[in-house]
Amino acid sequence: MQFFSSDFKLGILGGGQLGKMMLYETRKWDIYTKVMDASPEAPCKIACNEFVEGSLMDFDAVYNFGKDVDVLTIEIENVNLDALEKLEHEGIKVYPPTKTLRTIQNKATQKLFYTDHGIPTSPFTRFAYTSEIEDSIHNGGLDFPFVWKSAQFGYDGQGVKVVRKMEDLENLPNVECIAEKLVDFKNELAVIVARNTKGEVVTYPVVEMEFHPEANQVEYVICPARIDEKVAKKAQEVALKVSEEMKQIGLLAVEMFQTQDDQILVNEVAPRPHNSGHYSIEASYTNQFEQHIRAILGLPLGKTESKVAGIMVNLVGAEGHTGNVVYENMEEILGMDGVTPHIYGKRQTRPFRKMGHVTIVDEDMVKARAMAQKVKETINVVSK
Amino acid sequence: MQFFSSDFKLGILGGGQLGKMMLYETRKWDIYTKVMDASPEAPCKIACNEFVEGSLMDFDAVYNFGKDVDVLTIEIENVNLDALEKLEHEGIKVYPPTKTLRTIQNKATQKLFYTDHGIPTSPFTRFAYTSEIEDSIHNGGLDFPFVWKSAQFGYDGQGVKVVRKMEDLENLPNVECIAEKLVDFKNELAVIVARNTKGEVVTYPVVEMEFHPEANQVEYVICPARIDEKVAKKAQEVALKVSEEMKQIGLLAVEMFQTQDDQILVNEVAPRPHNSGHYSIEASYTNQFEQHIRAILGLPLGKTESKVAGIMVNLVGAEGHTGNVVYENMEEILGMDGVTPHIYGKRQTRPFRKMGHVTIVDEDMVKARAMAQKVKETINVVSK
Repeated sequence: MQFFSSDFKLGILGGGQLGKMMLYETRKWDIYTKVMDASPEAPCKIACNEFVEGSLMDFDAVYNFGKDVDVLTIEIENVNLDALEKLEHEGIKVYPPTKTLRTIQNKATQKLFYTDHGIPTSPFTRFAYTSEIEDSIHNGGLDFPFVWKSAQFGYDGQGVKVVRKMEDLENLPNVECIAEKLVDFKNELAVIVARNTKGEVVTYPVVEMEFHPEANQVEYVICPARIDEKVAKKAQEVALKVSEEMKQIGLLAVEMFQTQDDQILVNEVAPRPHNSGHYSIEASYTNQFEQHIRAILGLPLGKTESKVAGIMVNLVGAEGHTGNVVYENMEEILGMDGVTPHIYGKRQTRPFRKMGHVTIVDEDMVKARAMAQKVKETINVVSK
Repeated sequence: MQFFSSDFKLGILGGGQLGKMMLYETRKWDIYTKVMDASPEAPCKIACNEFVEGSLMDFDAVYNFGKDVDVLTIEIENVNLDALEKLEHEGIKVYPPTKTLRTIQNKATQKLFYTDHGIPTSPFTRFAYTSEIEDSIHNGGLDFPFVWKSAQFGYDGQGVKVVRKMEDLENLPNVECIAEKLVDFKNELAVIVARNTKGEVVTYPVVEMEFHPEANQVEYVICPARIDEKVAKKAQEVALKVSEEMKQIGLLAVEMFQTQDDQILVNEVAPRPHNSGHYSIEASYTNQFEQHIRAILGLPLGKTESKVAGIMVNLVGAEGHTGNVVYENMEEILGMDGVTPHIYGKRQTRPFRKMGHVTIVDEDMVKARAMAQKVKETINVVSK
């Protein structure tokens, strides 16, 4: 099949910032795209060939959207899987496959998948309702501290809470959830694996993630991770195993903990381009968005090595600011060498909202790291 | 002024492949764009915020288009300058400035500018009509061989012809033109200079261009040029002088000859992103399109150094093929490391039509050069 400047049609469910960055690649290759998003102000509305306004969780909306595309992909996991399944049965190529999405969409199912397939992950207990947790603590079945996670629809740090005492359980939604042992880790790592329709597989270098202590959002992503080579190799092997066991097609971003005794435990995965791979636009031979497109179209996968060291800083809304966004001191960071801001195009900011990211690249990691700190201290996402 | 996610509006005259690549950058920074092009199928039609169909040479079309933008730029020089001048007088920021465009748009004026400002260029004679050339030859005022160039509206090798004997003059249009001494050169070089509204200036490394012997189109652009450092320094100094004398704002791509005795002669310039800078998307810290945007918005200019060696191969329509385009052996070149095709999105191919380009990057120039050859021998732009 010919994908370039032809009648081939790629469907993308979700029109947010990840979709937007994916569209740079489809434009580069003149691949015809059709995007659906619930918001008429979605960043993808321009740059795709066709835009459909519709809910990603609605069966009819997803099914009708997908009927006339050749390949269907996602930029977010929270989509109607029954519609995807029906499309798959009718011959539409859905990547990631619906089965993989089913495993991932529910965090309890995802954790069970790991234990069933011998993939190292932290111990956990599954609950049909949050209200069942209290009994379990009283019965000695669960000890503080633990991490409460909603089984469904958590993102950007929502749906996750560290529970250290009984009162922390108050105000949590009474939903299907898991209680996960709090891991005492040295580092949070991530590896992106790409697997194409022909079974070809490549892995990106291990990145190191630093989280904001309060917002539970990634603050820095550092590539390559400044860790022992043996640990890096182990992390890549574990990520590769997850991708293979899940029979994923497209990207799989595998987030992991490196424990104090250098074990690797899988935390969670995303079957798509991921925040931990944004550095690749400036630093890698093949950026993650192009790689995802290559994988789902069955094209040869690109070189995953880096040209230079890369660090990504998330641009999130400052506390105390809600309203029309202003990026303070943008000129100052543009005056620093190797600094590239990406602005997602959301007009309204609010505390901790992801508004963009900044990539810092340099031949020298130490210099890049120092500059990243300076970028973070300089730029400020506020409201007018 | 705030440019990012704000009410600021950037106008771009021309919606072809250069505009399309510029739009990746405006999208990255969420800068609102309005584009005009005569073709309803212009590659820029999607990815800009507003698209206007209109002739770039029409006074009213250009004037009406430009009235409500904050900054107006171009992706092609052949635009109505009277309209631009009127807009400039009314306070619209036009970059490149109309005066610079007037100097450049007419090749005779451009050549005179060089001689008037002590910028080295090959000797030439100006003619009001091609028909006057014959007399000049008979009178001994002009010797074979020389290069005939139409003073206006030449691009992609059109409007240029090497004249070696009287018969070569036949069939040339009877227009204002110049006859330029044919330069015996070692290399064709180019340097991109960026100058922002505040007078800050940076230059990119010197690139080396290899032309297709028949089509007079660039076949390979090689960065950095494999030339002596002293010659490279001289080329950058000459390019810088042209940019300063022209008071250019935005990019200026300066094409030059390196003569057998290592003189640098300016051939011609383009006041915008240029084919000779496409390698920068994959190879440079700051690509030429982002740099142009930085310059015309008065933002600090980005680092012009390369991360890796870069070579660009133009993808042009194969001889004997006219019709719906097919890119043969695309998968083969995607299977080579560090190879990135760019498809401009023209549905119809014809012999020597620019359909896209491919960038090859590698740490090792020798390897990159060998791979570029392989890419060129592999891919084929044909019609179905």
